[in-house]
Order: sequence, then structure tokens, then C-alpha cells
Amino acid sequence: MIVVSVMYPASADAKFDMKYYLERHVPLVGERWGSMGLREAKVLQGVGAPGGGVAPYQVMALLTFDSAVAFEQAVAQHGKEILRDIANFTNVQPIIQVNDVLV
Amino acid sequence: MIVVSVMYPASADAKFDMKYYLERHVPLVGERWGSMGLREAKVLQGVGAPGGGVAPYQVMALLTFDSAVAFEQAVAQHGKEILRDIANFTNVQPIIQVNDVLV
Repeated sequence: MIVVSVMYPASADAKFDMKYYLERHVPLVGERWGSMGLREAKVLQGVGAPGGGVAPYQVMALLTFDSAVAFEQAVAQHGKEILRDIANFTNVQPIIQVNDVLV
Repeated sequence: MIVVSVMYPASADAKFDMKYYLERHVPLVGERWGSMGLREAKVLQGVGAPGGGVAPYQVMALLTFDSAVAFEQAVAQHGKEILRDIANFTNVQPIIQVNDVLV
């Protein structure tokens, strides 16, 4: 099991259409990758930092896949379509990384 | 339910004692906060980025709490001790933020 984290930075001029993201983009990810090893998709919204600061990331998606190989195949097949859809809801580039689950 | 994300950046001179972190720090967090609303602690280790890049964050901890209030109380009571312990396993400062769970 791996977790792919997709983190959208917050910034003064960052736009993020949460309605499109939740109603169109997240379902698109589920439709394309649900049969390719995607086990779970969790979406977090940054609301603050300890001590009253601003959350550095406005949105974080955590995608659990069966394996790194399954994720690579999912990206090879539908990655372009899913990445291209990002411009429909935000003007920021997400930081994406692949993670092993230790605990 | 909220999720507190604690993300340790990767860098050329970043040190991270994974043994201490897993055997001492994570259990310390569980001991101090387990009775104060901490429901789950998940630890991810960054292993790469799509296309073969390096993971920007070497380690990410995801702490699920009953509520933001529970987390604030947990920090007020044991935050100093837990934050002070970070210097025992790494020389980098984690990025910490509080998140609502949307999906």
C-alpha cells in the first residue's frame, strides 16, 4: 500500500474552486482510477496552523493505492486527463509525492 | 474530526533518525495525547515523485483528533514536551497545519 499526497499551496493570489473540485475532479479521479488500484481518496482542507497562523496548503488529497506499480499504471493510462483537469479549478500547481505507509 | 499534518521537508543536509522517531517520538505522542482526543496516528515516508523526482517531504505524520478544541487542549498540556523532542531526531523544522476532513 502506498499513499500519493497531492498538496495545493495557499498563496495570496491562489484561486481554488472547491465546488468544481469536489463535484467534478474528485469523482473523475474515482472513475478513472477506482478500478486501477485506488483504494481510498481522502480530502483535507487546511484551516490554520498551531498558534493561529495560516495553513501553508489549502487542500491536500491523500490517495491510497494497492502498490506503486498500480499507481504508475494508473498515471500512464489516465494521468494526462486528470492533470489537465487541474487547470479547471485552480491556478496553483500541486506538490505531488509518493509515500510508503510506516505506521 | 480534524487531521493535523506534520511534514518534515527533505533537503541535502537534512538529518532524520527514523529509529528514534518510530521507537520514541511516535509512542510519546500516543502516550501524551491518546487520552486527549487523538484517534489515529499515521506515518508516511516520502519515497519519490511522479516521473522519478525526489519527494519534497521525507516524513509526514497525520494525526486525527476528535476536534480542533481537543487538539488545542492537547497542545496546551503537552505541546512543549513533544515539540522539544523533535530536536532529538531531526535538524529540520516540520510544517504543521490543522485540516478539516472534507471527503
